Amino acid sequence: MKFKISSKLQYKINDFSTIILNIYAAKTKSQTIITEALDIDPHMEAEELDNIENDNRSIRINTKAVESLIIKYEAEVDSYSQLIDKSELKFIPVSQLSIEVIPFLYQSRYCQSDKLLRYAQNKFGHINHAYDQVYEICNWIRNNVAYTSGSTDSETSAIDTITEREGVCRDFAHLGIALCRALTIPARYLSCYAYKLEPPDFHACFEAYLGGKWIVFDPTELAPLNGLVKIGTGRDATDISVANIFGNTSLNSMEVINEVQDKNFYPLFMKDLKDRGVAL
Amino acid sequence: MKFKISSKLQYKINDFSTIILNIYAAKTKSQTIITEALDIDPHMEAEELDNIENDNRSIRINTKAVESLIIKYEAEVDSYSQLIDKSELKFIPVSQLSIEVIPFLYQSRYCQSDKLLRYAQNKFGHINHAYDQVYEICNWIRNNVAYTSGSTDSETSAIDTITEREGVCRDFAHLGIALCRALTIPARYLSCYAYKLEPPDFHACFEAYLGGKWIVFDPTELAPLNGLVKIGTGRDATDISVANIFGNTSLNSMEVINEVQDKNFYPLFMKDLKDRGVAL
Amino acid sequence: MKFKISSKLQYKINDFSTIILNIYAAKTKSQTIITEALDIDPHMEAEELDNIENDNRSIRINTKAVESLIIKYEAEVDSYSQLIDKSELKFIPVSQLSIEVIPFLYQSRYCQSDKLLRYAQNKFGHINHAYDQVYEICNWIRNNVAYTSGSTDSETSAIDTITEREGVCRDFAHLGIALCRALTIPARYLSCYAYKLEPPDFHACFEAYLGGKWIVFDPTELAPLNGLVKIGTGRDATDISVANIFGNTSLNSMEVINEVQDKNFYPLFMKDLKDRGVAL
Amino acid sequence: MKFKISSKLQYKINDFSTIILNIYAAKTKSQTIITEALDIDPHMEAEELDNIENDNRSIRINTKAVESLIIKYEAEVDSYSQLIDKSELKFIPVSQLSIEVIPFLYQSRYCQSDKLLRYAQNKFGHINHAYDQVYEICNWIRNNVAYTSGSTDSETSAIDTITEREGVCRDFAHLGIALCRALTIPARYLSCYAYKLEPPDFHACFEAYLGGKWIVFDPTELAPLNGLVKIGTGRDATDISVANIFGNTSLNSMEVINEVQDKNFYPLFMKDLKDRGVAL
Repeated sequence: MKFKISSKLQYKINDFSTIILNIYAAKTKSQTIITEALDIDPHMEAEELDNIENDNRSIRINTKAVESLIIKYEAEVDSYSQLIDKSELKFIPVSQLSIEVIPFLYQSRYCQSDKLLRYAQNKFGHINHAYDQVYEICNWIRNNVAYTSGSTDSETSAIDTITEREGVCRDFAHLGIALCRALTIPARYLSCYAYKLEPPDFHACFEAYLGGKWIVFDPTELAPLNGLVKIGTGRDATDISVANIFGNTSLNSMEVINEVQDKNFYPLFMKDLKDRGVAL
Repeated sequence: MKFKISSKLQYKINDFSTIILNIYAAKTKSQTIITEALDIDPHMEAEELDNIENDNRSIRINTKAVESLIIKYEAEVDSYSQLIDKSELKFIPVSQLSIEVIPFLYQSRYCQSDKLLRYAQNKFGHINHAYDQVYEICNWIRNNVAYTSGSTDSETSAIDTITEREGVCRDFAHLGIALCRALTIPARYLSCYAYKLEPPDFHACFEAYLGGKWIVFDPTELAPLNGLVKIGTGRDATDISVANIFGNTSLNSMEVINEVQDKNFYPLFMKDLKDRGVAL
Repeated sequence: MKFKISSKLQYKINDFSTIILNIYAAKTKSQTIITEALDIDPHMEAEELDNIENDNRSIRINTKAVESLIIKYEAEVDSYSQLIDKSELKFIPVSQLSIEVIPFLYQSRYCQSDKLLRYAQNKFGHINHAYDQVYEICNWIRNNVAYTSGSTDSETSAIDTITEREGVCRDFAHLGIALCRALTIPARYLSCYAYKLEPPDFHACFEAYLGGKWIVFDPTELAPLNGLVKIGTGRDATDISVANIFGNTSLNSMEVINEVQDKNFYPLFMKDLKDRGVAL
Repeated sequence: MKFKISSKLQYKINDFSTIILNIYAAKTKSQTIITEALDIDPHMEAEELDNIENDNRSIRINTKAVESLIIKYEAEVDSYSQLIDKSELKFIPVSQLSIEVIPFLYQSRYCQSDKLLRYAQNKFGHINHAYDQVYEICNWIRNNVAYTSGSTDSETSAIDTITEREGVCRDFAHLGIALCRALTIPARYLSCYAYKLEPPDFHACFEAYLGGKWIVFDPTELAPLNGLVKIGTGRDATDISVANIFGNTSLNSMEVINEVQDKNFYPLFMKDLKDRGVAL
């Protein structure tokens, strides 16, 4: 499936700053970059920092003070998500997990799974199949947490969201991850370009490790899972936030686009995925 | 109904200290002290600090350093709890609450109701009758929070308990209070001597303001509500903790007893109170 | 000293709501109301809820849905603050505090003094005189916490402020209170009309109980202490917040004025008060 | 320098469990394992999980229920710590950090550096040299946080420690890491066998990335830095905790030993390291 994605960020830079951006589409077995271009106006050097461990392609920009710094990224991406039958998406006990996956069982800054062991067990422990557990976690989040733009900030964690019951895609993902880990299901944060997201923005979902594969889930139900173009993954938003800013800057505007180029695209939402999972 | 209550606290006092105890039975319209005695060994002056506002009778003891300070309180109490039909225990809107009751609508140190507005509304907002709401809050706490001795400490709050799902009577009461307040039902903490509590200890429940009366609820279901001898009430455990210590001391042992003196005592537990409430 | 104060609040009321306002000047021994008027447009009933315990005069307004509800309060107030020499403002040990004052030693929703015992002792425990301790607490807050409008919200507590080091007058007051209580000095929140506050707004300070009197302190150093017209006091902002809203409403605008009517007013700021305290 | 280290853990296993231990000495350029042996009684399979990214050598043991499971590890290790002059331990701006180091700038579960930016800047921002900054952070922690065995638990984070001012080596390390990251100095958690630690236990320190090297710091001042035998490193204790338990087990006892085999060992404590750092 071909996607055309782009993002445009405009900053005011008040002082010499370093910006680390996670806006490039990932290069993976199932996602190929056909063309891509980064344009920075006024021109600044940009350095790509590839993380071999997790396919993330960060961009580091060092910039002097400037009234307006516009960073524009455009790419054509060929991305094939895989549909996998639920029967193959079994729970893998920690006794069989590889060392690369084990860290995704542990608590992190925004996903304090260590505080939710009983909560997760009480609510989802009785469900037999691991895929159903994660699927139900997503349903439960969507039914119990209000999606409210601007209701949270960069300090908001899964514990805040599970009590205050309000948040955005980032918070939904953090809570999903924390609940999975509390059930001993490895889970990680996914940053992506989502097809037809309204209003347009970068999107966050999460992946759970089931049957030896990372299966994507979107507790917001806002975007089709087979329309996600992957930017990268991490333990939580810490690892793959859109922008890490070191210096005195302010974001003035942001535009994000994801357009499917193929006519025969049939969008699959969470509600279509009761019996099979999507792997990006 | 006649009760014989007693408590015995043994402290090691390392330095001059002031201890404020809440161990005296309250004097109220429905609770009369027949006899009572306080014995302090070695002898120290004890001063009764009566709080006219809420019937609490604190005891202040100033003590020098001593290997063993034993404080023993014994009382015979005549206490009549009132049974009130659910139909009378209606929700009173804040537009009609008196100024004395309004503070019990507000968040406090251990009952951060301001963070649980959506939580309470989602879970209990659909229930029609206010008495049923509070009753269901208690059922829900008992079914979802594990009662585990020693699992929490004096910093544990309702937010901790609602996420970590473990606690003791104090934590159960704090969570009940926080959820009531989040539904605009005034609620306060109740410290008491409970009949046949196992293991024997001071007990904590809470009262909700329904139909113009303070109705008692025990989310732990550990003690009969008509067997509670009231010590006092407050916004949360802050106001009516068993002991507030100012100085370097350690508690070595504690004994608490509550014995009913009447033969025809018929214990009423939460499960017996679906359709009527108990006012102390 | 004569003051002319006024406040004007404009709300949009989306649904039947109850609003409890704390905007009336308090009536105390040292503060007399010469004239006062409340105007509500369109007209709604307003009920005064007097709290005999602490002089607070809350106003309760029940209102139906209305595009614009304007509440205007104006008063002429005669207020005499008292200057007291530091030598009289001694620490009063808990062994001698009256039962009315003791609750102000305890932790509250926004002032978790129980978590700051070592912090306060390390930083201010070595200072000999209790007045100097509180004075230094104020200096330390002003030097270490950035005053940034809009940086905090109604959930922000003293623990947040002491770590994140940013806040407004309410947060400064909460932190001051928490540190005092951690040193066994009773402290309470003060809401007031402040003379020449820039930008104009309701102001929050705190009072510490020294030498048997409530002495006012302003860690923000933004207003003269002898220019404060008292609205009321409480354990923290919970008890005396400008507005407690029960219902679906939004505040559109707010105006607050405090003008001194006497020509010979000589403003006294914290920096002028090293050796004497102000009691309102 | 030759060290003989050993650890012995005794568990009661109530049910089939997986235990992931971090007790093996790391194999690094400067640390060689001469001999090592793991003994499990009764015999269970143990699998070594090597993390190429950070030298950590986790051990995974799957065990059935058993009254007593004794895990004993013994090793002879040749470990050469390097002394580096302060002049070489310069601050490296984020513009020059490699992608492997950048994650250690970010907040983590127990090191919420995002909440301490102003705190760190106010207290340590004025210090010129990065090594001095970290050195002063350690001094400040030791002088302001009480080392109290048993005062904290596995949920305690840097924010708790910086307010409550009490903790153990793990908490000291977390706070040091958080403050470094808040100053844009990469920092990571170090688990180790410490020479002559009293009482004997596993030890935790932290490393800051200065001058292109990971330099070790011990805010507890409890052990010589050149006597540390490295187990592994991570973002915080999450990554390199002594034991991650999946299942129903309890630890009954633990013994930890670190003996230097060379006679000419000259212990270097933090106080000896004002002008030079130690790299393990």
